[in-house]
Amino acid sequence: MRHVISVLMANEAGALVRVAGMFSQRGFNIETLNVGPTEDPMVSRLTLVTEGTEHIVDQINRQLLKLVDVIDVLDMTGDEHVERELALVKVRHDNGSDAVRTRSEGFDVTSISQNDAIETLQFIGTGDALNTFVAALEDAGVLVELARSGAVTLTPGDTGLSYDDTDNDLS
Amino acid sequence: MRHVISVLMANEAGALVRVAGMFSQRGFNIETLNVGPTEDPMVSRLTLVTEGTEHIVDQINRQLLKLVDVIDVLDMTGDEHVERELALVKVRHDNGSDAVRTRSEGFDVTSISQNDAIETLQFIGTGDALNTFVAALEDAGVLVELARSGAVTLTPGDTGLSYDDTDNDLS
Repeated sequence: MRHVISVLMANEAGALVRVAGMFSQRGFNIETLNVGPTEDPMVSRLTLVTEGTEHIVDQINRQLLKLVDVIDVLDMTGDEHVERELALVKVRHDNGSDAVRTRSEGFDVTSISQNDAIETLQFIGTGDALNTFVAALEDAGVLVELARSGAVTLTPGDTGLSYDDTDNDLS
Repeated sequence: MRHVISVLMANEAGALVRVAGMFSQRGFNIETLNVGPTEDPMVSRLTLVTEGTEHIVDQINRQLLKLVDVIDVLDMTGDEHVERELALVKVRHDNGSDAVRTRSEGFDVTSISQNDAIETLQFIGTGDALNTFVAALEDAGVLVELARSGAVTLTPGDTGLSYDDTDNDLS
């Protein structure tokens, strides 16, 4: 099952290594991951998407909370949350521009730059929508290069990660 | 100096740990980082933003290329490239909705959901623009929660990372 997990942690590269290491040590792959500063410069927010059974992912989340760098962990899987992913996609127009235009229909796709037969597109949507779009471009033989941000997520309203590390749902 | 570095590497969590470890071992902070699959399911693309002198970052890039997981490294700093970042931003409307609307002007900001006084916005732009936007929301006292993707980058046209690990500019 696909899990979307957000982690608040100390803003240092060592914290990232320890959190990602918790997954790699168990042979878990990380499908996408992103990390960046929050409104508190001492704190980073990391969001990762992984596959695993409820039981094993829950075990990992509990172990993450034991790391000194980790302030809070939230597994958003199954809970209401907003999810968006950004991708930059380079496509080739050798096969006619219609190939790209047709496959972009129904998606939030913007042209950013064009350099001879190579065009760079910006895609915004869910990870699933991005997978569908990329597969369609590959089918058409026009995909040149892909850079994706990984899922970025927030829970709505007052719910969310807590900066108070004595108060979390998993502990 | 700010450096934007893209890495093609094996699609496994261990590779991410080793690449991030190369920075943390040297005491380098990683400002933002993201990683996700490319059009080749065996290969991931990682983009990170860090601060450092040309000389030290060049040293790290050369060492990254020596990791067995790493296929290619491209430091886009100074070269022409497209850069975009996605952020989800939760804001509070206690101080009047004008505070948010005024500060969103001139940015690519879309409202995604509204839950009583809490609104979730989607931001698209450069990392610098995002920093400016976030600072303005903090000044207004309306920022509740921030999740950012980190910089996603591509070089234009035919230039880019190479899947052929015997051919790269840094080796």
